[in-house]
Amino acid sequence: MSLRILTRAWKNQTRRKISDSALFSRSFSELSARSERPSFGIAFDIDGVILLGNTPVGGSPAALRRLYDEAGKMEVPFVFLTNGGGYPESRRASDLSRLLGLNISSSQVIQGHSPFKQLVNRFENELIVAVGKGEPAAVMSEYGFKNVISIDEYSSCYEHIDPLAPYKKWTTLPVADQNSKLKESSPRDNVCSERVQAAFVVSDPVDWSRDIQVLCDILRTGGLPGRNVGPQPHLYFANDDLEYQTAFPSERLGMGAFRIALESIFNRIHPHALDYTSFGKPQPSVFKNAELVLKQLTLSLDGLCDVNHKSAQCFKTLYMIGDNPAVDIRGARQSGHPWFSILTRTGVFKGKENHHKFPADLVVDTVEEAVDYILTKERTS
Amino acid sequence: MSLRILTRAWKNQTRRKISDSALFSRSFSELSARSERPSFGIAFDIDGVILLGNTPVGGSPAALRRLYDEAGKMEVPFVFLTNGGGYPESRRASDLSRLLGLNISSSQVIQGHSPFKQLVNRFENELIVAVGKGEPAAVMSEYGFKNVISIDEYSSCYEHIDPLAPYKKWTTLPVADQNSKLKESSPRDNVCSERVQAAFVVSDPVDWSRDIQVLCDILRTGGLPGRNVGPQPHLYFANDDLEYQTAFPSERLGMGAFRIALESIFNRIHPHALDYTSFGKPQPSVFKNAELVLKQLTLSLDGLCDVNHKSAQCFKTLYMIGDNPAVDIRGARQSGHPWFSILTRTGVFKGKENHHKFPADLVVDTVEEAVDYILTKERTS
Repeated sequence: MSLRILTRAWKNQTRRKISDSALFSRSFSELSARSERPSFGIAFDIDGVILLGNTPVGGSPAALRRLYDEAGKMEVPFVFLTNGGGYPESRRASDLSRLLGLNISSSQVIQGHSPFKQLVNRFENELIVAVGKGEPAAVMSEYGFKNVISIDEYSSCYEHIDPLAPYKKWTTLPVADQNSKLKESSPRDNVCSERVQAAFVVSDPVDWSRDIQVLCDILRTGGLPGRNVGPQPHLYFANDDLEYQTAFPSERLGMGAFRIALESIFNRIHPHALDYTSFGKPQPSVFKNAELVLKQLTLSLDGLCDVNHKSAQCFKTLYMIGDNPAVDIRGARQSGHPWFSILTRTGVFKGKENHHKFPADLVVDTVEEAVDYILTKERTS
Repeated sequence: MSLRILTRAWKNQTRRKISDSALFSRSFSELSARSERPSFGIAFDIDGVILLGNTPVGGSPAALRRLYDEAGKMEVPFVFLTNGGGYPESRRASDLSRLLGLNISSSQVIQGHSPFKQLVNRFENELIVAVGKGEPAAVMSEYGFKNVISIDEYSSCYEHIDPLAPYKKWTTLPVADQNSKLKESSPRDNVCSERVQAAFVVSDPVDWSRDIQVLCDILRTGGLPGRNVGPQPHLYFANDDLEYQTAFPSERLGMGAFRIALESIFNRIHPHALDYTSFGKPQPSVFKNAELVLKQLTLSLDGLCDVNHKSAQCFKTLYMIGDNPAVDIRGARQSGHPWFSILTRTGVFKGKENHHKFPADLVVDTVEEAVDYILTKERTS
């Protein structure tokens, strides 16, 4: 039976079931009461699946509410697995709670830049530059980096570094309030004499002309713009998404497009090719980490904390619900068992059939249909 | 005798001569009186030769004053041949007059976008988008394009087209008077339903993230962002300078870098490679046009206007004084007779010897030394 037919048949079957979601809640409450934790978990992409811009899409609030029991206790372990970012996980969790009318904890939010935490030991006290929309330096400070500066503030330390600055009419102070907070943690007077050891592109860069210029200055000189030359500092990207879906009808350029622009220019002005590392989906490490987080979450639901506890070893299925075949679906399929990929039509993917290059295990219209499918399947399995 | 030795020998010889510039003036005044118009002319690059940012460099005001007689009448025909732009030639001439303390006419200013005038017949009434710092739409309107819109104003017609707009603490929106001028010439309500027929990158783009996004939208859809697909509209660049010199110690990225970024991204998201045309130095057509303008200027000094007049046929030498080997020197040398290339060390080029890939006919420190060399050579030839 082709996936298309399967999808249609299942849709007809579940439309009826959507009406009695209370039944699902009861059934899982009973399981819970018998302390039989469901052996599955769900990872939701955010942009194009849960939200379009700041607006819920595809019935996401209702779909997510069905993962809690009637008392509001989480019943099905789930996380948000996004390549987006720019704010600390705690801030993102509170924003999602407000937009979706749920109580999301920061432990349920895995962002593109979350793996940067693993690099704290390497760069804890080194001068590093944080790039991107939102509060990239605040994100890195919260991870434990002690000598971080945003590219906004870094650029303001070098007169004339951005030749286009006179044509940018500032509507607010160039240096955001986040930097006043950072001033305490890193002495600004060192900036012009201290080598930058690494640049972290935390979220989508905003001022591409300045950021590409300043990053080229940092990377081609060994961390001292306009000065002597040294080995290229490290460069990390939170994701490599070429495009993503917003409220605009067609996809918008993402961090992957910025990386292509920076790399193409750098490789024209520098004898050695740009050396960099990209994180985020579809990297298998992201899905391994999501599995670990879901295990910890499952244990916490039972008041346990040891991920090596036997009850933590038993995920039969982990569902990845995403809108981007090249990122969400490709990543889940590459990761193999226990991942099962579900592709929605509310974001980047808009096809009638499955995606030709990165086919999902299941294609649905919305996240609400995806959750219906999961709860039906898990109840009857 | 190597160029290096020649340069040094000539420097020692001319240092003495610099002191008695009045002598040069007299000698040329006498020539002039005998209506023997000097059979040479000079083309000056601006950025890195005449100015660094808005500050005169290399003794440029004094050097240029020596091309006028004591009564302030131009004696040696000269033009400014720059790849820069963003403002109408009339505005650039008045800015140069103010910064250099001279009376420069708009006919002496040839900018990167000046050749766009030749495309008026093709796009006179078509919807075209003008991109870049300064007043790109005003430039195109002054050339005679009747349905031009700046990319600032064009983008504001499409909600959500720039996903980074909410994070921008600055704006590139044009000044009100330019807007009002444009509103008369092009009805804004047509913009979202009318196909863009061409995009002109008039000067260095300021908001790269938005301009690359919107240009990709225009070019990949056939001129209707977010809508149906059609053939790629035409795309013109005023120059292809990878880097240029400003007040910052190392070169800054120019329009050529923006072109590389746009082309690299477009070619990743579109099945057909980006099709575009670049103007500006080192294109031989630019030097042919400069020769024509210098001929007209020479005739106007004699109160004539026919460029086919016999006295207009007699340039023995045209001097190109520039700081960029790949642009100024390469272009002058490719153009052959009557061009003679002089490379200064006040801009992009900072080498001790000649440039290895694009060697100039002469290398000097400053534009003042270049003018000394020219006047000495022409007086004794």
